[in-house]
Amino acid sequence: MPLFKKPQPSWREDVAAPGTFRSILKYDPNKFKHPSHGWVEAFKSEFGMTDEDFQGKAKRPGGDQPVRLEQPIALAREQIDAFRNMLGGDNVAADDYSRVRYGHGKALEENLDLRKGIARKVPDLVLHPRDKEDVKKIVEYCNQQRIALVTYGAGSGVVLGTRADRGGVALALRTHMNKLISINELNKTCVVQPGMMGPDYEDALQHAPERFGTKLAYTCGHFPQSFEISTVGGWIAALGSGQASSYYGDAYHIVHSQEYVTPAGVIKTNDIPGTATGPRVNDILKGNEGTYGVLVEATMKVFKHMPDNRQRFAFMFPSWEAAVDASRAVAQGEFGMPAVFRISDPEETELGLKLKGFDGGLFGKLLVSRGFQPMRRSLCIGTVEGEKSFAANVKKQIAKIARAHGAMSLTGVATRQWEHGRYSDVHMRDDLLDHGILIDTLETGVTWDNVLHLHRAVREFVKKRPRTFCMTHASHFYPQGTNLYFIFIARPEHEEEFFEFRAGIISKIVENGGSVSHHHGVGRLFAPWIERHLGKEQMAVLRALKRHFDPNDIMNPGGALGLS
Amino acid sequence: MPLFKKPQPSWREDVAAPGTFRSILKYDPNKFKHPSHGWVEAFKSEFGMTDEDFQGKAKRPGGDQPVRLEQPIALAREQIDAFRNMLGGDNVAADDYSRVRYGHGKALEENLDLRKGIARKVPDLVLHPRDKEDVKKIVEYCNQQRIALVTYGAGSGVVLGTRADRGGVALALRTHMNKLISINELNKTCVVQPGMMGPDYEDALQHAPERFGTKLAYTCGHFPQSFEISTVGGWIAALGSGQASSYYGDAYHIVHSQEYVTPAGVIKTNDIPGTATGPRVNDILKGNEGTYGVLVEATMKVFKHMPDNRQRFAFMFPSWEAAVDASRAVAQGEFGMPAVFRISDPEETELGLKLKGFDGGLFGKLLVSRGFQPMRRSLCIGTVEGEKSFAANVKKQIAKIARAHGAMSLTGVATRQWEHGRYSDVHMRDDLLDHGILIDTLETGVTWDNVLHLHRAVREFVKKRPRTFCMTHASHFYPQGTNLYFIFIARPEHEEEFFEFRAGIISKIVENGGSVSHHHGVGRLFAPWIERHLGKEQMAVLRALKRHFDPNDIMNPGGALGLS
Repeated sequence: MPLFKKPQPSWREDVAAPGTFRSILKYDPNKFKHPSHGWVEAFKSEFGMTDEDFQGKAKRPGGDQPVRLEQPIALAREQIDAFRNMLGGDNVAADDYSRVRYGHGKALEENLDLRKGIARKVPDLVLHPRDKEDVKKIVEYCNQQRIALVTYGAGSGVVLGTRADRGGVALALRTHMNKLISINELNKTCVVQPGMMGPDYEDALQHAPERFGTKLAYTCGHFPQSFEISTVGGWIAALGSGQASSYYGDAYHIVHSQEYVTPAGVIKTNDIPGTATGPRVNDILKGNEGTYGVLVEATMKVFKHMPDNRQRFAFMFPSWEAAVDASRAVAQGEFGMPAVFRISDPEETELGLKLKGFDGGLFGKLLVSRGFQPMRRSLCIGTVEGEKSFAANVKKQIAKIARAHGAMSLTGVATRQWEHGRYSDVHMRDDLLDHGILIDTLETGVTWDNVLHLHRAVREFVKKRPRTFCMTHASHFYPQGTNLYFIFIARPEHEEEFFEFRAGIISKIVENGGSVSHHHGVGRLFAPWIERHLGKEQMAVLRALKRHFDPNDIMNPGGALGLS
Repeated sequence: MPLFKKPQPSWREDVAAPGTFRSILKYDPNKFKHPSHGWVEAFKSEFGMTDEDFQGKAKRPGGDQPVRLEQPIALAREQIDAFRNMLGGDNVAADDYSRVRYGHGKALEENLDLRKGIARKVPDLVLHPRDKEDVKKIVEYCNQQRIALVTYGAGSGVVLGTRADRGGVALALRTHMNKLISINELNKTCVVQPGMMGPDYEDALQHAPERFGTKLAYTCGHFPQSFEISTVGGWIAALGSGQASSYYGDAYHIVHSQEYVTPAGVIKTNDIPGTATGPRVNDILKGNEGTYGVLVEATMKVFKHMPDNRQRFAFMFPSWEAAVDASRAVAQGEFGMPAVFRISDPEETELGLKLKGFDGGLFGKLLVSRGFQPMRRSLCIGTVEGEKSFAANVKKQIAKIARAHGAMSLTGVATRQWEHGRYSDVHMRDDLLDHGILIDTLETGVTWDNVLHLHRAVREFVKKRPRTFCMTHASHFYPQGTNLYFIFIARPEHEEEFFEFRAGIISKIVENGGSVSHHHGVGRLFAPWIERHLGKEQMAVLRALKRHFDPNDIMNPGGALGLS
């Protein structure tokens, strides 16, 4: 027993006080996830931090002050009255808190600003439409009055996609337009309002027999890391990917048809799965990030809820190259796809083992003795779903491929551990930022022939910066490629330097043939790179559509998607 | 032995003479497929025809005259010279035969016209570009000179999609731009020129190890009935579906990226499989039917060629309703999809049995004794592909579902018989038309909850016309729906009445919620219905894109896709 007990990190455990900036900047004001002891040790060793650095007195600004805004409301009295007449007074908010809350997403720069009590761009008013008729009136009026309009889901976006750069109104869809309207059991589709939160949506589907009188229970198949803090509309607007996307498809694939209110009118796409009636408007509308119109209703594909058929697996591969190669064989194996599938690069693998205490001990020694060397080996975790024998065969084929690539089975335990933190890990950011540790993520879509090259190019760039963690995984698989997800953590002297560093990574990704975004969307964060990535001809197409839907540039104006 | 031998039908067996209209109107001037004895008997009984009606003297005009055109070339001397300088004299054709050949597809009305030596609309010139640089020069020049331009693949389309309504030039891509350029074995993609014919394409992929030095052999996965007489570019332009589409996907799904030459410039889409970078221009371009630009190169997904894993199955269901219900269970079973899958309605089933002589005899009696009643029972055939145990499980699950829906297994024999005629049946049209029997087809995409209703509504309409065959099947399956493919055959007094009848069917389809086209495209045939089907808001999007890509309306102008 040590004489002097070492000071323990003083993580905050207080629910962010209502009305404070902190209650806005946290992913969830009520939730906490503290870095493990392993993480603290890693930070100390990498960043040269001391135990004292994790004490209360070392804390950075936490945004604990009540929200106060400098910006006056730029709308005219008559305009405000018009909205109040339209929606009822309760559904029009002009208070500082609402304007800040519905003017911010979860980008790192927004978080750091809010911690200091800085709100740079906010809407003038926050509107809470009750239904699509309300949205229609709002859009018509805004178009007529040239009032900027930003659609806001749950605000979990990290790409400045819903920032009210030109003031105007923010549409809070989560308040009222948050219901599952119907389930079509024959078509295996449901109609859902865009403001419905992930857990509510999934819960309603899983309880469909009780709530909708269906024969079967369903699942939405879309489980992004932000599942608990995002809306269905947000998934579609920003083209998200769930953690089980390799089996269920990305948001892009599970949207069956949609209804939008645009300045050019209401547009409802057909719900017929196969057609040859020209370019598919349903696909054209996906991913417009609120720049073409407001999604007011989506018909989504649903899947049978068969949790009993889910099986887990995990493997250790001797190298990242072997893990990538095996993943490609899986994605191209033509035996169906796993649901969750994730391979971690050596640094992520190493940190993962270290944080769980698996790098030493018997297990650690076993790994090394079997030839799985630290900073070479790569962890793979995953699940299979679907019909029982289909799922069993996918698992069997993956095991076969893994063995052929020199992997060792770790059973499904590693996957269960990952599942434990799959939605909660995001809350760790609060503690890190409280102590000046910055964490951000970038992800990119990539073809198989470019995975190793792109990974190497980005790591080379990142590792030129001393004292920087860079964990990478691939977690969304297609026969033609995958994604690379980079998590980087540093404790910079100056925040600005970190953002320059991040910009450098984005440039490296684009230079080396990666997509500027795999599933975070473009927003305003990636806008400066989008034309370099897509080329001016593709951008011209997106802009032509913008002119069609929104000739007066009122929909999410000011740089979203790189349109202006 | 009968005293007087009954006269046998005098089907034509002559290769259509070069230079004649007949050599153009036939799907293939060298190919024949004669109606079986069963068909002839069916025609006699249904249409009141006699053996004499199938004799030579009863024949209708066959288009045997050499092609002669009235229409002068409307282009100026300098314009023709400009094209000759651009492409070389050999690649610019101004002769009557070329103008008729590259001005016609395979729509029934075109066929009937050509039989009479009538060519209504033809291009002024036929150009044979050697490569995409040629196409670029042609499009630039046509745009500058306001010359209409129609892109022509192999001319198997049946929707008047490549008719040169405003004269100008036809681009014959099949002549030179017909090669498989490369295979990317890591990405499982290949780069192909749009004018490559189906069999050449598949042959090159299956022989990839010898020809491209790949490790594996590949398949394109796209086998429409027109496989032997269509080009890869045509599949994409008109959004075709192959007979194995339920497993491999429609043309829409297997196009990975594309390069187009448009009046607004050359546009090449990214080849990254998963991205969140706004609306996907790659999808926006699919299915534009040459109205936005010329497809000059496509990167297509390819699949491992594993013919040994293919297995066949066939079932007889007690009713159409049972077959539809079982198919839905298959498509929503989450065990992967069959490759070929086809259910025939009672009339198609009955004719199929009759034509093969299976309606009587021991087998016929067995069917009835087991409760499979004539004009109630429904035939289902199919194949499974993919990894061996995956395919085996799909087959097993289908058998399980079929049994649960009261079906009897027929083994794979029925499927083999269908395979035998899968590409050759189209040639039967020549003999029918020679004898005044008109055959045409319409197909529609439909959601599961509307299959029975739509089928009933169309049949009710069709059956109001006496002496009309109407065979229907569903052959492309999705979790959310399928298609209905109607084949109707009649021997009208007047051709016009048959076309009015066809228009009536199309209206019935649209009124009852079907898509105006599942996989034939829109062209000019369905243009009058497209706005009713898609609605004016969706049409406005397609027109906005048209204005962007082709502001001077030179690309396939005159009504294709209902744009003008």
